[in-house]
Amino acid sequence: MVRDCSTDTVAKAVREYEGVTRKHDIGGMIKALRIEAPDVIASFGEDAAVIRHNTDDALLLAADGIWSRLMEADPFWAGYCAVLVNVHDIAAMGAKPVAMVDILSVTSERIRTEVTRGMVTASAQFGVPIVGGHLHPDTPYSVVDVAILGTARMDQLIFSHTAEEGDAVIAAIDLDGRIHPSCCLNWDSVTMKSSAEVRAQIELMQHLGAERLVTAGKDISNPGIIGTLGMLLEVSGKGAVVDLEAIPRPDLAALGIPFEQWVRMYPGMGFILTVRDEHVAEVCRRFSSVGMAAASIGRVDASRNLTVTYHGEKTEVFDLDRDGIMRIFADEDVCR
Amino acid sequence: MVRDCSTDTVAKAVREYEGVTRKHDIGGMIKALRIEAPDVIASFGEDAAVIRHNTDDALLLAADGIWSRLMEADPFWAGYCAVLVNVHDIAAMGAKPVAMVDILSVTSERIRTEVTRGMVTASAQFGVPIVGGHLHPDTPYSVVDVAILGTARMDQLIFSHTAEEGDAVIAAIDLDGRIHPSCCLNWDSVTMKSSAEVRAQIELMQHLGAERLVTAGKDISNPGIIGTLGMLLEVSGKGAVVDLEAIPRPDLAALGIPFEQWVRMYPGMGFILTVRDEHVAEVCRRFSSVGMAAASIGRVDASRNLTVTYHGEKTEVFDLDRDGIMRIFADEDVCR
Repeated sequence: MVRDCSTDTVAKAVREYEGVTRKHDIGGMIKALRIEAPDVIASFGEDAAVIRHNTDDALLLAADGIWSRLMEADPFWAGYCAVLVNVHDIAAMGAKPVAMVDILSVTSERIRTEVTRGMVTASAQFGVPIVGGHLHPDTPYSVVDVAILGTARMDQLIFSHTAEEGDAVIAAIDLDGRIHPSCCLNWDSVTMKSSAEVRAQIELMQHLGAERLVTAGKDISNPGIIGTLGMLLEVSGKGAVVDLEAIPRPDLAALGIPFEQWVRMYPGMGFILTVRDEHVAEVCRRFSSVGMAAASIGRVDASRNLTVTYHGEKTEVFDLDRDGIMRIFADEDVCR
Repeated sequence: MVRDCSTDTVAKAVREYEGVTRKHDIGGMIKALRIEAPDVIASFGEDAAVIRHNTDDALLLAADGIWSRLMEADPFWAGYCAVLVNVHDIAAMGAKPVAMVDILSVTSERIRTEVTRGMVTASAQFGVPIVGGHLHPDTPYSVVDVAILGTARMDQLIFSHTAEEGDAVIAAIDLDGRIHPSCCLNWDSVTMKSSAEVRAQIELMQHLGAERLVTAGKDISNPGIIGTLGMLLEVSGKGAVVDLEAIPRPDLAALGIPFEQWVRMYPGMGFILTVRDEHVAEVCRRFSSVGMAAASIGRVDASRNLTVTYHGEKTEVFDLDRDGIMRIFADEDVCR
């Protein structure tokens, strides 16, 4: 049982969390940027864009950056995370991460050295090379951004916009970790693991995609478990009811953190998936085999509301018709 | 004849130009970032990294950003250039630009709107979609970075590191343009052109690569005509002698700018190529057919010095053995 849990507290914490509110501007950007491009199968609203190549191949392209405050607090971890979030973006789509480029703006030699050390540590651990980039050597600020290329067969892709009414919602998280000392909202389950362990977790998503065991999926990023599910539902044009009690979690009492902090954390390895009932047991078993806790936490419905329940209590977190998160909606043809 | 031209003045202007000196930190970054990756055919030191895919295919990945001062001076032009420089990076390698992602940090709504308008204008004109990206909506600075994906057949690629002793050096530039009102070091030959015109210029490089008409090539970027040639020679482990009189140029007297400004300019469309003598006339003819002035401006030698000459006067610009520009050297196995 989750101690001191109230659905209202959790809903408010998620809704007003900066990890979620920072996504509100995305919709406007997308409308401004779109041009005709027949080979672009998916773009904004997915973790990575998908470009069809030679009929059956898919090329994936994504970019992600690290909040400047983390860059100042712990440049090594910022560099590590810049790689990690990009690898997650490709893995979440059922694809193979192939290569990255970095764009680095730094105020000092020390920050550059530490960020670079963080990036190359993650690059070597995950086996994804950094093959180029751009360095702004003399900026008044420090920021690290990474873009990533991935490859897949078209028929193994996992999208965010394809959740179906009636699917189970599965949360899969590596609980064997620690609260990162530099950031209380980062659940570090990766820096202490071997290459073989983290690569098996990343590759599992490719198998789930190729065997068509999931209907939709997304990596759990800054908006946390519930915020990420909200984004998936938003682009799928669906809703869901989630039972907070069912969300996989470490021993929060021992860690000394409240449940509403846990659900906002960015896990070192975590995915939200939607899965037909007949595949739920198999999907959970596969995650367990790579050291990740996976559980069915709710069910997709046609409501376009994301509601959380706890011991009979019930609160709506997002009215996706009215508010949205990224403010891109399924009826605007997000995924072309 | 170039008025008031001295080889010493030009050599010093190029050598001490920030567009060149900002490249000095690249070498250190590369050493720190390299990991084993057998499919990576080329990476740092080339305009784009090349990853082998399905035996005969090449996937290209590059990233480039815009100096923050341009972002403040003219956010529309900064956004336009962010796309342009990335399209150049892929075109210079003889490949097709396929899709881009942008990473945007902005201090204000106005800057975001203008940068976005610049990016989408260039994206539509060149026919290369922006398919995703990352937005830092609340930074204390404004910067725009773009990463780009390109594709080619392995046998049509043009590299920087493959110049051969005895080759002619060709500079190809679209002279039909203007000094950009927001930046006296930008030669804008693109904003006033049709999609068909600029796309033909970009596609020409793919034909030159496929027909093996050039031995090496690079787009003329911030370091300007001579600085860019220096970078190409640096990674090729070669030198060259360049005749300043032969460099294609608009009517500088009418524009009111000195020659040493022209050679440091970033042209809207410009490439440095090395070409065997038997192909020089054909390569120049092809550039002429797409509205670009191309001329043989010098010759590659084994010296590892870049020397400029003018009416019998002679000055060494770069001792590439001693100083380097990017400070990555051919014997360090830049291109794997």
